[in-house]
Amino acid sequence: MKIVKMSEVSKEPLVRPLFTGRDVTRQVLVPDSKEFNVNIVNFGKGVRNKFHAHDGEQILIVTAGKGIVATEKEERVVTKGDVVLIPAGEKHWHGATEDSEFSHIFVTRAGIAPTTQLED
Amino acid sequence: MKIVKMSEVSKEPLVRPLFTGRDVTRQVLVPDSKEFNVNIVNFGKGVRNKFHAHDGEQILIVTAGKGIVATEKEERVVTKGDVVLIPAGEKHWHGATEDSEFSHIFVTRAGIAPTTQLED
Repeated sequence: MKIVKMSEVSKEPLVRPLFTGRDVTRQVLVPDSKEFNVNIVNFGKGVRNKFHAHDGEQILIVTAGKGIVATEKEERVVTKGDVVLIPAGEKHWHGATEDSEFSHIFVTRAGIAPTTQLED
Repeated sequence: MKIVKMSEVSKEPLVRPLFTGRDVTRQVLVPDSKEFNVNIVNFGKGVRNKFHAHDGEQILIVTAGKGIVATEKEERVVTKGDVVLIPAGEKHWHGATEDSEFSHIFVTRAGIAPTTQLED
């Protein structure tokens, strides 16, 4: 087995066209996993990702701050302790509110196709 | 998408021979998931599960209290914010210390075979 403390896992900058800003970092929690991606994403105030979809399900576990998770039908504010299930193929975005930073763990299956960005 | 607050998810008693005591509950966080089991397990003081193994990987995310995660080679104390990767097939146990309750989220793939108990 392998144990890490979330607070000690290094934060890698995550500068990608998927995000509306550059203040985003990623912490890879289980780099040795063969079955899962389990990463923290830390969003700066007001930064979110753009509409996208995944080939498999995505689970979000909110760990800090205040964020928004949105589909084409709804926008929901989420805070620490909220857990979100996003079905495979559902068009959605998530990120920080204007007044708060925001962090969540995400879980996806290892080996699914890269995220499909659906907004420029 | 579907959102739940961990604190509002009902706690089901989990009375099974796998555990060393009866003070164990489970909270099913994403009952609609087709790909993942994501559950909280809450252990009373001094209660743990017995040596067991899974056909797939298991991820533990500690959410409260103080616990122990053990293999045949080591016993490690874990607290909130610790993340554990247990490889497929690794013989292990986890549960609360004598002086603390303990809660963790676990993640496994949906559809893997039931846990194989390896200790009476």
